[in-house]
Amino acid sequence: MRGNFLFAWIVLPTALAVLGFVAQRGDTVRGAMSGPIYTRNGDLLPPASYREWIFLSSGVDMSYNKKSAKLTMFDNVFVNAEAYRSFLVTGTWPDKTVLVLENREGKDKGSINEKGHYQGTDVMGLEVHIKDEMRFPGKWAFFGFESETRPGKLIPKAADCYGCHEAHGAVDTTFVQFYPTLIPIARAKQTLTAEFLKIDASMREK
Amino acid sequence: MRGNFLFAWIVLPTALAVLGFVAQRGDTVRGAMSGPIYTRNGDLLPPASYREWIFLSSGVDMSYNKKSAKLTMFDNVFVNAEAYRSFLVTGTWPDKTVLVLENREGKDKGSINEKGHYQGTDVMGLEVHIKDEMRFPGKWAFFGFESETRPGKLIPKAADCYGCHEAHGAVDTTFVQFYPTLIPIARAKQTLTAEFLKIDASMREK
Repeated sequence: MRGNFLFAWIVLPTALAVLGFVAQRGDTVRGAMSGPIYTRNGDLLPPASYREWIFLSSGVDMSYNKKSAKLTMFDNVFVNAEAYRSFLVTGTWPDKTVLVLENREGKDKGSINEKGHYQGTDVMGLEVHIKDEMRFPGKWAFFGFESETRPGKLIPKAADCYGCHEAHGAVDTTFVQFYPTLIPIARAKQTLTAEFLKIDASMREK
Repeated sequence: MRGNFLFAWIVLPTALAVLGFVAQRGDTVRGAMSGPIYTRNGDLLPPASYREWIFLSSGVDMSYNKKSAKLTMFDNVFVNAEAYRSFLVTGTWPDKTVLVLENREGKDKGSINEKGHYQGTDVMGLEVHIKDEMRFPGKWAFFGFESETRPGKLIPKAADCYGCHEAHGAVDTTFVQFYPTLIPIARAKQTLTAEFLKIDASMREK
């Protein structure tokens, strides 16, 4: 009887409370996780639900050369929430940061819009810039996706994007200079690169 | 003694477990809550951390007339996560939906950018469209903010924005036609207005 009493009134409720507590923590952690998942051959699974991640900014027709493009194109950049929260504290990116660049066509006339551009429903391009310190020489890698549902391929280290990001990215090979809510944090935390600081004054004047 | 035993081994641990559980749920709920907070005189507190809410889309220089503007301006739209998740299921907005429209100037040359526009660090405009069924006739109201930190003022019902949203918003007085990830959901859930369905075909062709 004593054993039954203990089980019914102490062990069982305590175990259930602890289990409930752990399960809930588990849910919270799972809900927040958004780290990279690779296939056996080294491709990267498309990041699920990146549209629910933290939005960094959107640009339109941005280019490092003056060639004109045929289409108006938006680029939206998202980052996983864990990396964003870490950036707010440190001014730089932690391991397992995943930045997603999504391109959408800029539509002009539609509904009541008579001028300017809004974003179309089709994703026209998807790229991931990922920090995985143990996996990639240089810590970061780019992956290109041909669809939102199929694994993306590693972009070779010789591609221009690596050199350009390393030379011109304001923080840790990333273009924080174009993310309006992050650049003031990087400035305060003094994580801007020396290269960027040289041109910083000219950007601040504009 | 019996009373002490009960208190020390049953009542206290159970109470602590329940309190812990509730406190954690409370944290979760508080963390996720992003409903409206009004001042005594009916102003609306600026929504905290809306940049961490769900991004719906960004447009550039959108206008319902053809007048040209002096500045290139981006408009970013965010919605509270609870309302977004409800929309994914129902195709329309629940009570206490908060949509935030943020304007930022489109900058042109800066860093390596030679063409197109990226978003500047200053918020040039901030408006909230809020659904609070018990509070507002017509269920929805607009609030305009002069700063990101001071309460915003209710925009009077006679203002153009109300009539335009009611006449042309694709779902429940909101411009879901410009939110590329939501319009397919509204289409699937058949929550598009009759007025929008008339012009829908023309938008889909573009």
